[in-house]
Amino acid sequence: MNKSEGVLEPYGHGGDLWTASARFGVRPEEWLDYSANINPLGPPPSVMEALGQCRTAVVSYPDPGHRELKRLLAGRLNVAEDELLIGNGAAECIALALSGLDIRSVGIVAPCFSEYAQLAEACGAEVRAVVGREANGFLAEPSELDALLERTDLLFLGHPNNPTGLTYPLEQLREIAELAARHSAYVVVDEAFIDFIAPEERATLLPELRRYPHVLLLHSMTKFYAIPGLRLGYAIAAPGAIRKMARKQVTWSVNGLALLAGQACLRPETAEYERRTRELVAAERAYLRREIAARLGWRTWAGAANFLLIELSGGWTAERLQEALGPKGILVRSCAKYDGLTERHIRIAVRGRGDNERLLAALAEVMREETAR
Amino acid sequence: MNKSEGVLEPYGHGGDLWTASARFGVRPEEWLDYSANINPLGPPPSVMEALGQCRTAVVSYPDPGHRELKRLLAGRLNVAEDELLIGNGAAECIALALSGLDIRSVGIVAPCFSEYAQLAEACGAEVRAVVGREANGFLAEPSELDALLERTDLLFLGHPNNPTGLTYPLEQLREIAELAARHSAYVVVDEAFIDFIAPEERATLLPELRRYPHVLLLHSMTKFYAIPGLRLGYAIAAPGAIRKMARKQVTWSVNGLALLAGQACLRPETAEYERRTRELVAAERAYLRREIAARLGWRTWAGAANFLLIELSGGWTAERLQEALGPKGILVRSCAKYDGLTERHIRIAVRGRGDNERLLAALAEVMREETAR
Repeated sequence: MNKSEGVLEPYGHGGDLWTASARFGVRPEEWLDYSANINPLGPPPSVMEALGQCRTAVVSYPDPGHRELKRLLAGRLNVAEDELLIGNGAAECIALALSGLDIRSVGIVAPCFSEYAQLAEACGAEVRAVVGREANGFLAEPSELDALLERTDLLFLGHPNNPTGLTYPLEQLREIAELAARHSAYVVVDEAFIDFIAPEERATLLPELRRYPHVLLLHSMTKFYAIPGLRLGYAIAAPGAIRKMARKQVTWSVNGLALLAGQACLRPETAEYERRTRELVAAERAYLRREIAARLGWRTWAGAANFLLIELSGGWTAERLQEALGPKGILVRSCAKYDGLTERHIRIAVRGRGDNERLLAALAEVMREETAR
Repeated sequence: MNKSEGVLEPYGHGGDLWTASARFGVRPEEWLDYSANINPLGPPPSVMEALGQCRTAVVSYPDPGHRELKRLLAGRLNVAEDELLIGNGAAECIALALSGLDIRSVGIVAPCFSEYAQLAEACGAEVRAVVGREANGFLAEPSELDALLERTDLLFLGHPNNPTGLTYPLEQLREIAELAARHSAYVVVDEAFIDFIAPEERATLLPELRRYPHVLLLHSMTKFYAIPGLRLGYAIAAPGAIRKMARKQVTWSVNGLALLAGQACLRPETAEYERRTRELVAAERAYLRREIAARLGWRTWAGAANFLLIELSGGWTAERLQEALGPKGILVRSCAKYDGLTERHIRIAVRGRGDNERLLAALAEVMREETAR
């Protein structure tokens, strides 16, 4: 985790419009941001409508029990309310799992979301990493995870994994859950991006979660519903684990507008927006992969989420590409700091066709400028 | 800390409109809420204006470095940016002080804000309490604090204290700061309500903070600027302490709308709103004290904040009063659970004249109904 950051990630993440603006002189609201993986449709109309009438939610304390949002989520997910923990972003749920479950050692499968290791280190837990084999899409085999689970209290699995977008088959998830039980270790299956996969195509332990008291599912509402500024995520797990996590949560940690927006996201009329989002992301992901291969010859991975891992070629590094795209108002995410990846790896979000055309044109232009030098 | 809660405080705090609504059938936005201490003027116009144009702050990740808000605050407070930590409410700053400074034992002066002990317990720290003497306005003498500081890593001092509203003289604050240095213990002076005191009348260590590396000042922006739903607070301390606290903070913990609103609060044109707030609160606090004494014969304390501690008489308890006022759509805060106080103590916010007249009339009516029974 000590590898150097990209030009645009002094805080270790994409979507940092403030660093980008200070560096390239483009105003925060003017960026075409491919460095954060946010639904290109923006928030559902119901959210912006709710935020337009938000005075009560601003001037009152948020519900410390998150009662209405929990009720709506429980109904939609078909779980009990005491199997749910609402968090100030999925990141807070991770921190609460680490502190609430008294985790001393954490297992990760690199490359993966950097907060697993960062929050573990902040909590004083030891981090043990398996590096996924490239030939296997950087996923880990259950046999490797078996060895890791034996030596750790809690294993993080990105599913889809960030930054690859790849997923584990359901049979492997079950196998991992059983290994975890055998080793009395927790497994956090981070499903932050799973909403981008159609429900009928999703591999998830959600419907059978009660068989696996050592499994926690982690969800984010900020990516799919395009509300990262508000912060909203949740964990689904056995009531005992949820209670231990909730005990560590700071009162009012989840703000009132996040609760309001979360409730608006779960209205029945959002179904159409959800369907359109999945359709758009699947079509544009395929389009971007095809065009990037055809026009640039770069390798991509067959992810299932709203982002793509790309391996640059032709002597390009992530940093040089960021420097070339920045003045054009376009941000991409360097993956140089991810264990298992190199300075040639970047991650881009999947956006709408107009934006994607602009990105592809900018990339072609950058290549031409390079050749002309 | 194990005393029973009031009817309306299952989560240990006032302002819980959801519990009140479930109990009395009044809708959350319809309550006349005297149980939370929020500026009766509502947020400054600049805040609602900023929130009306909040799309970028919703659909982008918040600045993980809180750079613009820090810059504005540093200018206003005349401190360096590395002496500031922005938190997801003052409550998060408390939690970060406890975990970041590796606090094993905490000193409190009861009665005081319940989160000091609650967050300390959640962090696994031991809590040692001095109960302030009623004759001294429930404040502690420096000699008592000397003994407490000898046995604790960190002392919390409410200033003004919640629920009394009373403050320590500047000379005593200096004396306590020096005692803390001598015992190598931290003192958190919780100034969450100090903005309600005019700058020229405030006793604060802020201008001389560099002399006291063991002192942390805690501020809230949610009370004075009436944005409790958004969550925003900050700590001011020596850069070394700030760095240790920041290391424990979850990335993006402070949401984008809170940052946006905080920046709007610090615009120069807010000065007039700030002046009007202090004028209104001082006048209405005096009015409420006078009328409560004259019409009801209840004792109040000469606090400096936007709330009043009241000792009921005539056989009334906080719980019975909550039960009587609830059906009238009015909430007050039970102080029965505060160490050092009793089931006869309540706390009310100071609101505008119209609301205060409605409260006084409702109280008179409740008394009449009681007499008639």
